[in-house]
Amino acid sequence: MAGGEEVEVKVLGDWSSPFVMRAKIALNLKGVKYENLEETLSNKSQLLLNSNPVYKKVPVLIHNGKPICESLLILQYIDEAWVDSGPSILPSDPYAAAMARFWAFYIDDKWLPAFMGIPRGKTEEAKVEAAREAIAGLQILEEVYEKLSKGKDFFGGNTIGYLDIALGSHLGWIKAAEKIIGLEFLEEKKMPNLTRWANCFCSDDAVKGVMPKVDELVEFAKKLQSRN
Amino acid sequence: MAGGEEVEVKVLGDWSSPFVMRAKIALNLKGVKYENLEETLSNKSQLLLNSNPVYKKVPVLIHNGKPICESLLILQYIDEAWVDSGPSILPSDPYAAAMARFWAFYIDDKWLPAFMGIPRGKTEEAKVEAAREAIAGLQILEEVYEKLSKGKDFFGGNTIGYLDIALGSHLGWIKAAEKIIGLEFLEEKKMPNLTRWANCFCSDDAVKGVMPKVDELVEFAKKLQSRN
Repeated sequence: MAGGEEVEVKVLGDWSSPFVMRAKIALNLKGVKYENLEETLSNKSQLLLNSNPVYKKVPVLIHNGKPICESLLILQYIDEAWVDSGPSILPSDPYAAAMARFWAFYIDDKWLPAFMGIPRGKTEEAKVEAAREAIAGLQILEEVYEKLSKGKDFFGGNTIGYLDIALGSHLGWIKAAEKIIGLEFLEEKKMPNLTRWANCFCSDDAVKGVMPKVDELVEFAKKLQSRN
Repeated sequence: MAGGEEVEVKVLGDWSSPFVMRAKIALNLKGVKYENLEETLSNKSQLLLNSNPVYKKVPVLIHNGKPICESLLILQYIDEAWVDSGPSILPSDPYAAAMARFWAFYIDDKWLPAFMGIPRGKTEEAKVEAAREAIAGLQILEEVYEKLSKGKDFFGGNTIGYLDIALGSHLGWIKAAEKIIGLEFLEEKKMPNLTRWANCFCSDDAVKGVMPKVDELVEFAKKLQSRN
Protein backbone atom coordinates (compact mmCIF):
# COMPACT_ATOMS: atom_id res chain seq x y z
CA MET A 1 0.00 0.00 0.00
CA ALA A 2 1.27 3.46 -0.88
CA GLY A 3 3.22 5.29 1.84
CA GLY A 4 3.28 2.22 4.11
CA GLU A 5 -0.30 2.98 5.15
CA GLU A 6 -1.58 0.20 7.36
CA VAL A 7 -4.72 -1.61 6.34
CA GLU A 8 -6.81 -2.45 9.33
CA VAL A 9 -8.93 -5.59 8.99
CA LYS A 10 -10.95 -7.08 11.82
CA VAL A 11 -13.29 -10.04 11.91
CA LEU A 12 -15.97 -10.11 14.60
CA GLY A 13 -16.40 -13.83 15.00
CA ASP A 14 -17.24 -16.99 16.85
CA TRP A 15 -14.95 -20.04 16.55
CA SER A 16 -17.85 -22.47 16.00
CA SER A 17 -19.63 -20.50 13.24
CA PRO A 18 -19.37 -21.74 9.62
CA PHE A 19 -20.33 -18.26 8.46
CA VAL A 20 -17.42 -16.64 10.27
CA MET A 21 -15.09 -19.27 8.82
CA ARG A 22 -16.12 -18.15 5.33
CA ALA A 23 -14.74 -14.66 5.90
CA LYS A 24 -11.51 -16.02 7.40
CA ILE A 25 -10.89 -18.50 4.56
CA ALA A 26 -11.39 -15.76 1.96
CA LEU A 27 -8.96 -13.43 3.79
CA ASN A 28 -6.43 -16.28 4.00
CA LEU A 29 -6.79 -16.97 0.26
CA LYS A 30 -6.09 -13.30 -0.45
CA GLY A 31 -3.18 -13.24 2.01
CA VAL A 32 -4.82 -10.49 4.10
CA LYS A 33 -3.82 -10.35 7.76
CA TYR A 34 -6.69 -9.71 10.14
CA GLU A 35 -7.40 -9.33 13.80
CA ASN A 36 -9.88 -11.89 15.14
CA LEU A 37 -12.23 -10.44 17.74
CA GLU A 38 -14.05 -13.33 19.38
CA GLU A 39 -17.60 -12.46 20.36
CA THR A 40 -19.55 -13.94 23.24
CA LEU A 41 -22.96 -14.43 21.69
CA SER A 42 -24.73 -14.29 25.05
CA ASN A 43 -23.11 -10.91 25.70
CA LYS A 44 -22.50 -9.20 22.35
CA SER A 45 -19.96 -6.38 22.20
CA GLN A 46 -21.01 -2.81 21.56
CA LEU A 47 -18.80 -2.96 18.45
CA LEU A 48 -20.89 -5.83 17.06
CA LEU A 49 -24.20 -4.12 17.88
CA ASN A 50 -23.01 -0.88 16.26
CA SER A 51 -21.51 -2.63 13.22
CA ASN A 52 -24.51 -4.82 12.42
CA PRO A 53 -27.52 -3.03 13.93
CA VAL A 54 -30.01 -4.83 11.66
CA TYR A 55 -29.05 -8.46 12.34
CA LYS A 56 -26.68 -8.16 15.36
CA LYS A 57 -24.92 -11.28 14.06
CA VAL A 58 -21.39 -12.46 13.31
CA PRO A 59 -19.45 -12.38 11.07
CA VAL A 60 -18.79 -8.71 10.57
CA LEU A 61 -15.73 -7.76 8.56
CA ILE A 62 -14.41 -4.33 9.49
CA HIS A 63 -12.12 -2.86 6.85
CA ASN A 64 -10.55 0.48 7.74
CA GLY A 65 -13.42 1.16 10.14
CA LYS A 66 -16.20 0.25 7.68
CA PRO A 67 -18.38 -2.76 8.55
CA ILE A 68 -19.57 -5.36 6.02
CA CYS A 69 -22.16 -7.96 7.11
CA GLU A 70 -23.57 -11.28 5.81
CA SER A 71 -21.03 -13.98 5.04
CA LEU A 72 -21.72 -14.44 1.31
CA LEU A 73 -21.66 -10.67 0.79
CA ILE A 74 -18.40 -10.50 2.73
CA LEU A 75 -16.89 -13.06 0.31
CA GLN A 76 -17.85 -10.89 -2.65
CA TYR A 77 -16.50 -7.79 -0.92
CA ILE A 78 -13.15 -9.45 -0.14
CA ASP A 79 -12.87 -10.63 -3.76
CA GLU A 80 -13.48 -7.09 -5.05
CA ALA A 81 -11.55 -5.12 -2.42
CA TRP A 82 -8.42 -7.27 -2.83
CA VAL A 83 -8.89 -7.94 -6.53
CA ASP A 84 -5.15 -7.99 -7.22
CA SER A 85 -4.20 -10.32 -4.34
CA GLY A 86 -4.39 -14.11 -4.40
CA PRO A 87 -6.79 -16.10 -6.59
CA SER A 88 -10.21 -14.83 -7.68
CA ILE A 89 -12.93 -16.10 -5.36
CA LEU A 90 -15.74 -15.73 -7.90
CA PRO A 91 -15.21 -16.99 -11.45
CA SER A 92 -14.61 -14.22 -14.01
CA ASP A 93 -17.08 -15.79 -16.46
CA PRO A 94 -20.54 -14.29 -15.73
CA TYR A 95 -22.42 -17.58 -16.15
CA ALA A 96 -19.97 -19.52 -13.96
CA ALA A 97 -20.26 -16.74 -11.34
CA ALA A 98 -24.07 -16.94 -11.50
CA MET A 99 -23.92 -20.71 -10.97
CA ALA A 100 -21.55 -20.35 -7.98
CA ARG A 101 -23.85 -17.71 -6.45
CA PHE A 102 -26.98 -19.79 -7.10
CA TRP A 103 -25.66 -22.93 -5.43
CA ALA A 104 -24.22 -20.97 -2.50
CA PHE A 105 -27.68 -19.42 -2.10
CA TYR A 106 -29.20 -22.93 -2.24
CA ILE A 107 -26.85 -24.11 0.54
CA ASP A 108 -27.97 -21.35 2.91
CA ASP A 109 -31.60 -21.26 1.83
CA LYS A 110 -32.49 -24.94 1.39
CA TRP A 111 -29.73 -27.26 2.56
CA LEU A 112 -28.88 -25.61 5.87
CA PRO A 113 -32.47 -25.44 7.19
CA ALA A 114 -32.71 -29.21 6.51
CA PHE A 115 -29.39 -29.87 8.29
CA MET A 116 -30.41 -27.65 11.24
CA GLY A 117 -33.70 -29.52 11.39
CA ILE A 118 -31.83 -32.55 12.79
CA PRO A 119 -31.12 -31.09 16.25
CA ARG A 120 -34.19 -28.86 16.11
CA GLY A 121 -36.72 -31.49 15.01
CA LYS A 122 -39.45 -31.83 17.64
CA THR A 123 -40.05 -35.54 17.07
CA GLU A 124 -37.74 -38.43 16.20
CA GLU A 125 -39.60 -38.66 12.89
CA ALA A 126 -38.92 -35.00 12.11
CA LYS A 127 -35.21 -35.48 12.88
CA VAL A 128 -34.97 -38.53 10.58
CA GLU A 129 -36.79 -36.67 7.79
CA ALA A 130 -34.43 -33.67 8.20
CA ALA A 131 -31.36 -35.95 7.98
CA ARG A 132 -32.81 -37.58 4.85
CA GLU A 133 -33.33 -34.16 3.27
CA ALA A 134 -29.82 -32.98 4.21
CA ILE A 135 -28.29 -36.08 2.61
CA ALA A 136 -30.47 -35.66 -0.51
CA GLY A 137 -29.19 -32.05 -0.73
CA LEU A 138 -25.58 -33.25 -0.63
CA GLN A 139 -26.39 -35.74 -3.37
CA ILE A 140 -27.61 -32.83 -5.53
CA LEU A 141 -24.35 -30.97 -4.77
CA GLU A 142 -22.38 -34.11 -5.77
CA GLU A 143 -23.92 -33.72 -9.25
CA VAL A 144 -23.35 -29.96 -9.27
CA TYR A 145 -19.67 -30.65 -8.49
CA GLU A 146 -19.38 -32.94 -11.50
CA LYS A 147 -20.81 -30.26 -13.77
CA LEU A 148 -18.90 -27.25 -12.42
CA SER A 149 -15.47 -28.61 -11.43
CA LYS A 150 -14.74 -30.17 -14.86
CA GLY A 151 -12.34 -32.70 -13.35
CA LYS A 152 -10.46 -30.17 -11.22
CA ASP A 153 -10.10 -30.30 -7.42
CA PHE A 154 -12.64 -27.64 -6.54
CA PHE A 155 -16.06 -26.38 -7.60
CA GLY A 156 -14.18 -23.23 -8.62
CA GLY A 157 -11.44 -25.06 -10.60
CA ASN A 158 -7.84 -25.38 -9.46
CA THR A 159 -8.22 -23.20 -6.36
CA ILE A 160 -10.84 -22.77 -3.66
CA GLY A 161 -13.60 -20.41 -4.74
CA TYR A 162 -16.95 -18.97 -3.65
CA LEU A 163 -19.00 -22.19 -3.74
CA ASP A 164 -16.18 -24.23 -2.16
CA ILE A 165 -16.16 -21.82 0.77
CA ALA A 166 -19.97 -21.73 1.02
CA LEU A 167 -20.21 -25.52 1.34
CA GLY A 168 -16.81 -26.28 2.86
CA SER A 169 -17.47 -24.03 5.84
CA HIS A 170 -20.14 -26.56 6.93
CA LEU A 171 -17.79 -29.58 6.85
CA GLY A 172 -16.83 -29.25 10.52
CA TRP A 173 -20.45 -29.47 11.64
CA ILE A 174 -21.23 -32.22 9.10
CA LYS A 175 -18.44 -34.35 10.61
CA ALA A 176 -19.57 -33.46 14.15
CA ALA A 177 -23.14 -34.51 13.26
CA GLU A 178 -21.80 -37.81 11.87
CA LYS A 179 -20.16 -38.48 15.26
CA ILE A 180 -23.13 -37.37 17.34
CA ILE A 181 -25.87 -39.25 15.52
CA GLY A 182 -23.79 -42.07 14.01
CA LEU A 183 -24.97 -41.43 10.45
CA GLU A 184 -22.67 -40.98 7.46
CA PHE A 185 -23.60 -37.84 5.50
CA LEU A 186 -20.74 -37.97 3.02
CA GLU A 187 -20.66 -41.63 2.06
CA GLU A 188 -17.72 -42.34 -0.23
CA LYS A 189 -19.59 -44.87 -2.37
CA LYS A 190 -22.55 -42.58 -3.01
CA MET A 191 -20.64 -39.30 -3.16
CA PRO A 192 -17.12 -40.05 -4.42
CA ASN A 193 -16.65 -36.51 -5.75
CA LEU A 194 -17.72 -34.66 -2.62
CA THR A 195 -15.72 -36.99 -0.37
CA ARG A 196 -12.54 -36.30 -2.35
CA TRP A 197 -13.37 -32.60 -2.57
CA ALA A 198 -13.89 -32.42 1.22
CA ASN A 199 -10.40 -33.86 1.80
CA CYS A 200 -8.82 -31.39 -0.65
CA PHE A 201 -10.71 -28.51 0.97
CA CYS A 202 -9.83 -29.36 4.58
CA SER A 203 -6.14 -29.84 3.82
CA ASP A 204 -5.78 -26.51 2.01
CA ASP A 205 -3.51 -23.97 3.71
CA ALA A 206 -6.25 -21.31 3.70
CA VAL A 207 -8.60 -23.65 5.58
CA LYS A 208 -6.47 -25.76 7.95
CA GLY A 209 -5.97 -23.13 10.62
CA VAL A 210 -9.59 -21.97 10.79
CA MET A 211 -11.55 -25.23 10.59
CA PRO A 212 -12.66 -26.07 14.15
CA LYS A 213 -11.71 -29.49 15.55
CA VAL A 214 -14.57 -31.98 15.21
CA ASP A 215 -14.24 -33.15 18.84
CA GLU A 216 -14.54 -29.58 20.09
CA LEU A 217 -17.71 -29.07 18.03
CA VAL A 218 -19.11 -32.35 19.42
CA GLU A 219 -18.37 -31.18 22.99
CA PHE A 220 -19.91 -27.78 22.24
CA ALA A 221 -23.07 -29.40 20.77
CA LYS A 222 -23.43 -31.61 23.85
CA LYS A 223 -23.18 -28.57 26.12
CA LEU A 224 -25.84 -26.75 24.07
CA GLN A 225 -28.14 -29.77 24.14
CA SER A 226 -27.78 -30.17 27.91
CA ARG A 227 -28.89 -26.54 28.33
CA ASN A 228 -32.13 -27.07 26.35
CA MET B 1 -21.73 -9.51 -31.89
CA ALA B 2 -19.21 -11.10 -34.25
CA GLY B 3 -20.60 -12.61 -37.44
CA GLY B 4 -24.07 -11.17 -36.85
CA GLU B 5 -24.80 -13.95 -34.35
CA GLU B 6 -28.14 -13.40 -32.69
CA VAL B 7 -28.27 -13.18 -28.93
CA GLU B 8 -31.31 -14.95 -27.62
CA VAL B 9 -32.68 -13.63 -24.35
CA LYS B 10 -35.90 -14.85 -22.77
CA VAL B 11 -37.57 -14.00 -19.50
CA LEU B 12 -39.94 -16.54 -17.99
CA GLY B 13 -42.22 -14.24 -16.06
CA ASP B 14 -45.49 -13.20 -14.51
CA TRP B 15 -46.81 -9.66 -15.03
CA SER B 16 -47.65 -9.18 -11.33
CA SER B 17 -44.29 -10.32 -9.89
CA PRO B 18 -41.86 -7.69 -8.53
CA PHE B 19 -39.06 -10.22 -8.92
CA VAL B 20 -39.71 -10.65 -12.63
CA MET B 21 -39.82 -6.87 -13.02
CA ARG B 22 -36.28 -6.70 -11.64
CA ALA B 23 -34.91 -8.76 -14.51
CA LYS B 24 -36.86 -6.73 -17.08
CA ILE B 25 -35.74 -3.35 -15.70
CA ALA B 26 -32.10 -4.46 -15.75
CA LEU B 27 -32.39 -5.67 -19.35
CA ASN B 28 -34.04 -2.36 -20.32
CA LEU B 29 -31.23 -0.40 -18.63
CA LYS B 30 -28.68 -2.37 -20.64
CA GLY B 31 -30.70 -1.97 -23.84
CA VAL B 32 -31.06 -5.74 -24.26
CA LYS B 33 -34.08 -6.94 -26.21
CA TYR B 34 -35.80 -9.98 -24.76
CA GLU B 35 -38.73 -12.24 -25.37
CA ASN B 36 -41.26 -12.28 -22.53
CA LEU B 37 -42.72 -15.72 -21.91
CA GLU B 38 -45.66 -15.30 -19.56
CA GLU B 39 -46.09 -18.25 -17.21
CA THR B 40 -49.35 -19.49 -15.73
CA LEU B 41 -48.32 -20.23 -12.18
CA SER B 42 -51.12 -22.75 -11.70
CA ASN B 43 -49.88 -24.64 -14.76
CA LYS B 44 -46.13 -24.07 -15.07
CA SER B 45 -44.48 -24.72 -18.43
CA GLN B 46 -42.06 -27.59 -18.93
CA LEU B 47 -39.47 -24.94 -19.85
CA LEU B 48 -39.83 -23.34 -16.39
CA LEU B 49 -39.66 -26.70 -14.58
CA ASN B 50 -36.56 -27.70 -16.56
CA SER B 51 -34.89 -24.30 -16.19
CA ASN B 52 -35.41 -23.93 -12.42
CA PRO B 53 -35.80 -27.49 -11.11
CA VAL B 54 -34.84 -26.48 -7.53
CA TYR B 55 -37.32 -23.63 -6.95
CA LYS B 56 -39.69 -23.94 -9.96
CA LYS B 57 -40.20 -20.17 -9.70
CA VAL B 58 -40.13 -17.13 -11.98
CA PRO B 59 -38.16 -15.18 -13.01
CA VAL B 60 -35.80 -17.27 -15.03
CA LEU B 61 -33.54 -15.46 -17.47
CA ILE B 62 -32.51 -17.67 -20.39
CA HIS B 63 -29.46 -16.36 -22.22
CA ASN B 64 -28.45 -18.35 -25.30
CA GLY B 65 -30.16 -21.41 -23.82
CA LYS B 66 -28.59 -21.13 -20.36
CA PRO B 67 -30.96 -20.48 -17.44
CA ILE B 68 -30.19 -18.11 -14.55
CA CYS B 69 -32.50 -18.06 -11.52
CA GLU B 70 -33.17 -15.83 -8.47
CA SER B 71 -33.91 -12.19 -9.23
CA LEU B 72 -30.99 -10.57 -7.36
CA LEU B 73 -28.56 -13.06 -8.92
CA ILE B 74 -30.08 -12.31 -12.34
CA LEU B 75 -29.35 -8.59 -11.78
CA GLN B 76 -25.69 -9.36 -11.08
CA TYR B 77 -25.52 -11.65 -14.09
CA ILE B 78 -27.01 -9.03 -16.42
CA ASP B 79 -24.55 -6.44 -15.10
CA GLU B 80 -21.59 -8.74 -15.78
CA ALA B 81 -22.77 -10.33 -19.04
CA TRP B 82 -23.51 -6.92 -20.64
CA VAL B 83 -20.73 -5.06 -18.88
CA ASP B 84 -20.11 -2.73 -21.83
CA SER B 85 -23.77 -1.82 -22.45
CA GLY B 86 -25.72 0.86 -20.58
CA PRO B 87 -24.94 2.00 -17.04
CA SER B 88 -23.40 -0.23 -14.37
CA ILE B 89 -26.08 -1.77 -12.18
CA LEU B 90 -23.76 -2.40 -9.22
CA PRO B 91 -21.40 0.35 -8.07
CA SER B 92 -17.76 -0.20 -9.07
CA ASP B 93 -16.53 0.71 -5.57
CA PRO B 94 -16.42 -2.53 -3.52
CA TYR B 95 -17.82 -0.95 -0.34
CA ALA B 96 -20.67 0.79 -2.20
CA ALA B 97 -21.43 -2.53 -3.94
CA ALA B 98 -21.45 -4.33 -0.57
CA MET B 99 -23.89 -1.74 0.81
CA ALA B 100 -26.21 -2.08 -2.20
CA ARG B 101 -26.14 -5.88 -1.87
CA PHE B 102 -26.73 -5.74 1.90
CA TRP B 103 -29.79 -3.50 1.69
CA ALA B 104 -31.23 -5.46 -1.25
CA PHE B 105 -30.80 -8.59 0.89
CA TYR B 106 -32.54 -6.78 3.77
CA ILE B 107 -35.50 -5.91 1.50
CA ASP B 108 -36.07 -9.56 0.54
CA ASP B 109 -35.15 -11.05 3.90
CA LYS B 110 -36.75 -8.65 6.41
CA TRP B 111 -38.89 -6.01 4.75
CA LEU B 112 -40.83 -8.24 2.33
CA PRO B 113 -41.94 -10.83 4.93
CA ALA B 114 -43.34 -7.92 7.00
CA PHE B 115 -45.15 -6.47 3.96
CA MET B 116 -46.50 -9.91 2.98
CA GLY B 117 -47.66 -10.36 6.57
CA ILE B 118 -50.41 -7.80 5.90
CA PRO B 119 -52.58 -10.00 3.65
CA ARG B 120 -51.32 -13.18 5.32
CA GLY B 121 -51.83 -12.12 8.95
CA LYS B 122 -54.27 -14.48 10.66
CA THR B 123 -55.76 -11.85 12.96
CA GLU B 124 -56.49 -8.15 12.53
CA GLU B 125 -53.84 -7.51 15.17
CA ALA B 126 -51.23 -9.48 13.20
CA LYS B 127 -52.08 -7.50 10.04
CA VAL B 128 -51.74 -4.16 11.85
CA GLU B 129 -48.41 -5.23 13.38
CA ALA B 130 -47.14 -6.34 9.94
CA ALA B 131 -48.11 -2.97 8.41
CA ARG B 132 -46.33 -1.17 11.25
CA GLU B 133 -43.19 -3.24 10.64
CA ALA B 134 -43.31 -2.65 6.88
CA ILE B 135 -43.56 1.12 7.40
CA ALA B 136 -40.71 1.03 9.96
CA GLY B 137 -38.61 -0.80 7.36
CA LEU B 138 -39.29 1.91 4.78
CA GLN B 139 -38.28 4.51 7.38
CA ILE B 140 -34.93 2.71 7.73
CA LEU B 141 -34.56 2.75 3.93
CA GLU B 142 -35.32 6.50 3.94
CA GLU B 143 -32.19 6.95 6.08
CA VAL B 144 -30.18 4.53 3.93
CA TYR B 145 -31.16 6.62 0.88
CA GLU B 146 -29.81 9.78 2.52
CA LYS B 147 -26.48 8.07 3.19
CA LEU B 148 -26.02 6.29 -0.13
CA SER B 149 -27.52 8.64 -2.74
CA LYS B 150 -25.43 11.69 -1.69
CA GLY B 151 -28.01 14.13 -3.04
CA LYS B 152 -28.49 12.34 -6.36
CA ASP B 153 -31.77 10.94 -7.72
CA PHE B 154 -31.15 7.28 -6.99
CA PHE B 155 -29.63 5.03 -4.33
CA GLY B 156 -27.07 4.19 -7.00
CA GLY B 157 -26.33 7.84 -7.96
CA ASN B 158 -27.42 9.47 -11.22
CA THR B 159 -28.90 6.32 -12.75
CA ILE B 160 -31.00 3.43 -11.49
CA GLY B 161 -28.88 0.73 -9.86
CA TYR B 162 -29.10 -2.56 -7.99
CA LEU B 163 -30.74 -1.27 -4.79
CA ASP B 164 -33.12 1.00 -6.73
CA ILE B 165 -34.34 -2.03 -8.67
CA ALA B 166 -34.56 -4.22 -5.54
CA LEU B 167 -36.84 -1.73 -3.75
CA GLY B 168 -38.48 -0.05 -6.74
CA SER B 169 -39.83 -3.36 -8.03
CA HIS B 170 -42.13 -3.40 -4.97
CA LEU B 171 -43.61 0.06 -5.60
CA GLY B 172 -46.56 -1.29 -7.62
CA TRP B 173 -47.68 -3.54 -4.77
CA ILE B 174 -46.98 -0.81 -2.17
CA LYS B 175 -49.35 1.52 -4.03
CA ALA B 176 -51.90 -1.27 -4.47
CA ALA B 177 -51.74 -2.00 -0.72
CA GLU B 178 -52.29 1.71 0.00
CA LYS B 179 -55.49 1.57 -2.08
CA ILE B 180 -56.72 -1.72 -0.65
CA ILE B 181 -56.21 -1.00 3.05
CA GLY B 182 -56.36 2.81 2.96
CA LEU B 183 -53.02 3.30 4.70
CA GLU B 184 -50.19 5.49 3.40
CA PHE B 185 -46.89 3.59 3.36
CA LEU B 186 -44.78 6.28 1.72
CA GLU B 187 -45.91 9.41 3.54
CA GLU B 188 -44.30 12.49 2.00
CA LYS B 189 -43.85 14.29 5.33
CA LYS B 190 -42.14 11.35 7.02
CA MET B 191 -40.25 10.04 3.99
CA PRO B 192 -39.56 13.00 1.70
CA ASN B 193 -36.55 11.27 0.11
CA LEU B 194 -38.24 7.96 -0.69
CA THR B 195 -41.35 9.73 -2.01
CA ARG B 196 -39.26 11.78 -4.44
CA TRP B 197 -37.15 8.75 -5.30
CA ALA B 198 -40.28 6.67 -6.05
CA ASN B 199 -41.48 9.29 -8.54
CA CYS B 200 -38.09 9.41 -10.27
CA PHE B 201 -37.97 5.61 -10.40
CA CYS B 202 -41.48 5.10 -11.80
CA SER B 203 -41.02 7.72 -14.52
CA ASP B 204 -37.71 6.28 -15.77
CA ASP B 205 -37.81 4.90 -19.32
CA ALA B 206 -36.43 1.53 -18.16
CA VAL B 207 -39.29 1.16 -15.67
CA LYS B 208 -42.40 2.76 -17.22
CA GLY B 209 -43.29 -0.06 -19.58
CA VAL B 210 -42.85 -2.89 -17.07
CA MET B 211 -44.44 -1.45 -13.91
CA PRO B 212 -47.92 -3.01 -13.61
CA LYS B 213 -50.88 -0.64 -13.31
CA VAL B 214 -51.95 -0.18 -9.70
CA ASP B 215 -55.64 -0.75 -10.49
CA GLU B 216 -54.84 -4.06 -12.18
CA LEU B 217 -52.86 -5.19 -9.11
CA VAL B 218 -55.78 -4.17 -6.88
CA GLU B 219 -58.18 -6.21 -9.04
CA PHE B 220 -55.78 -9.16 -9.02
CA ALA B 221 -55.41 -9.00 -5.20
CA LYS B 222 -59.20 -8.95 -4.81
CA LYS B 223 -59.53 -12.02 -7.00
CA LEU B 224 -56.85 -13.84 -4.97
CA GLN B 225 -58.55 -12.89 -1.69
CA SER B 226 -61.96 -14.06 -2.92
CA ARG B 227 -60.43 -17.47 -3.71
CA ASN B 228 -59.09 -17.92 -0.16
